[in-house]
Parts: sequence; C-alpha cells; structure tokens
Amino acid sequence: MNFLEERILREGRVLPGNVLKVDSFLNHQLDVALLDEMGVAIHRRFADAGVTKVLTIEASGIAIACSVARCFGVPVVFAKKSKSSNVGDDVYSAEVASYTHGNVSQVIVSRRFLVPGDRVLIVDDFLANGCALSGLIAITEAAGAQVAGIGVAIEKGFQEGGRLIRQRGYDVASLAIVDAMDARSGTITFRQQD
Amino acid sequence: MNFLEERILREGRVLPGNVLKVDSFLNHQLDVALLDEMGVAIHRRFADAGVTKVLTIEASGIAIACSVARCFGVPVVFAKKSKSSNVGDDVYSAEVASYTHGNVSQVIVSRRFLVPGDRVLIVDDFLANGCALSGLIAITEAAGAQVAGIGVAIEKGFQEGGRLIRQRGYDVASLAIVDAMDARSGTITFRQQD
Repeated sequence: MNFLEERILREGRVLPGNVLKVDSFLNHQLDVALLDEMGVAIHRRFADAGVTKVLTIEASGIAIACSVARCFGVPVVFAKKSKSSNVGDDVYSAEVASYTHGNVSQVIVSRRFLVPGDRVLIVDDFLANGCALSGLIAITEAAGAQVAGIGVAIEKGFQEGGRLIRQRGYDVASLAIVDAMDARSGTITFRQQD
Repeated sequence: MNFLEERILREGRVLPGNVLKVDSFLNHQLDVALLDEMGVAIHRRFADAGVTKVLTIEASGIAIACSVARCFGVPVVFAKKSKSSNVGDDVYSAEVASYTHGNVSQVIVSRRFLVPGDRVLIVDDFLANGCALSGLIAITEAAGAQVAGIGVAIEKGFQEGGRLIRQRGYDVASLAIVDAMDARSGTITFRQQD
C-alpha cells in the first residue's frame, strides 16, 4: 500500500452515494507535505514526457498541480469555471458536467497560456466519470498542444472515467484507485498497482 | 522595488475600471517559483506569530496559501464558495461580495478544520475592498480561533479594504501595494514599504 492509500484508509470517510470524503487532507484542508509527496510521485511517472505545462481545473486541483509543477519546473495553468456560457474568442472552452454538484459548467483557459508545441500534463485530485479530464483534454487539443499524460490523486475505479480515457490512448496514472467502497462498513478496496 | 513589484511591472496589464491583470503568473497561469518566493516572504514576516493554520478562499488563493503553509509546516484550509445559502450547522459561513463578479456568495469552512486555539494566518492573492478577508476573519473568530496575521500578494492601496482592516487592529502584510494605476498609459505606482 502506498502513502496515499494509507492516508485514505486512515482519514477517508465513505458516505452513501459512493462519496469518498478526503477533505481533511486533499480538498478542503490541505496537507502540503502529502501534496508534495504526490507531486514527486507524479513527476517520477512522467519525468521523460517532455512536460512544458501542468493543466488543472479550479479549485481543488490547484494545490496538487502546484506540487507537480514545482518538480518539473514548469508553470501551472488552471481552467476557470466561467460565470456565463457566452465566452470570448480569447479563450478555449469546454463544457464539464459535475458529478458532485449535478450541474454543467463552462470551463475556460486563455489562449495565451496554451500554445502549439506545449506538452501538457493534466492533473486533478479526482477521476470519477472523467468529465473534468475530458474537458481539459479538449481544451489542450483545441490549443494545438499535446497531452503528455494525466496524473490523478484518487481514481474511482468503479466508475467509467478512467477506463474510457485510457481506451482513447491517454496515459493515465492514478496514485490510488478505489475499486470498491462500502458506506455501511466503511470498507475501501484499492486496485493492486505496480 | 521587490521581486513581486518587478514582476507586476513587467507582466501586469492595467485595464479600464481599475482592473490589474496578473493572470500570467498569479491567478490563471501560476509561476510556482514566484509563489514560493512570496511564501518565504510572508513566512519571514509572520515567523513569530505562532501560526497553526493558513486560511484562504478558493480558487486563486489556494496556490499562494500552499507556498506559505509549506514554510510554516502547517495545513492550509480553503473556504469554499457554497452553491446554496442554506448551509448546514457543521460549517462556519460568511457572506462575501465579489468585486470582480458583482455578486455575493456564501463561503463556508467545516467546523472540523478550525478550532479554538488555532492561530490563523489568512492569505489571499488580492486585497481590494477587503470583503473576502473580512469573511475569512469572521469565520476564524466564529470558530473561537485567533487571526495571527494577514498576508496578501497584491493590495490595491487606492481601495479602502487594507485601511479598514488595519484600523480594526489586524496585522496586514501586502507584498506589493498599488497606490495608483492608469489604464491609458499603463502606469503602476507602488507604495514605498520597508
């Protein structure tokens, strides 16, 4: 079991509706040392991928993205949730459905910060149905940039996002993949990884 | 002139309506090395303040808060913008008006992450009218915790937020204070600080 899986077992709370609460270290309170350890692990996995930018989405992806980008010595770009669907032509945009909030938002990235030739490492805290990552992939490719890889803290392996994105040929590394969890007993089962 | 003021002069863009765009390094694309330099400077300023938590607000405060918290070896807590005004009794909440977006949102922090005895360093990327900081102060004090200090990247010194918050007795350190700016000429004037 790796450091993140151990921390999830220790502090994660399984709630009804397949909700995994990790807000004591990953997405409300942030354990910066743990984020840095995740940054090192994701950097190690993609060290040879020629990464020029780390792309994430506000809000809870920003912290881990910074820890990853520090290892690569490249900037972070975070996609913003737009207030209006009427976006300007100075941005790339994609629609992202939120599993947690049950709505669809427009996310945008300024054209100035993603350019052809960029090799983009997409980073996020969670991968469930893959909507956020699909939006970030679409934005990357609309910019004429390349997806160098996708690094995720926690993947819900029992939802289809990870499988679908890997089927499309993207290299996805998830530090912890939860294959099953049970709200009644609080049990969490991780997928065995190398 | 310090490192942040230099960067603002080099890359900041002054737009009509007293808007200072620093999205190439602070709040859309993030220069992690610069954020870390800001973290070190804010840590130096509050090194003796007994800080136990760094509190910020999503989204663009998160990155700088992580760089500050790393120096102190304490967790970050970021206040979340709530979708509904109907918040549970497991959170502290405050209303925050947004200068940029022209709306009011409810921001919340789980009661589990701020407790009496905490000495809270509030950190944000911008200080203008002070609404976000006032909300974070209110949440800190509702938790029975103490505001150990307030560290800000860029203060708009020509707006009243910084003056009002200092008048209330809080120790506010802003790495760059913009006293005047002019959209026509692009001129930015910084307040002289020690």
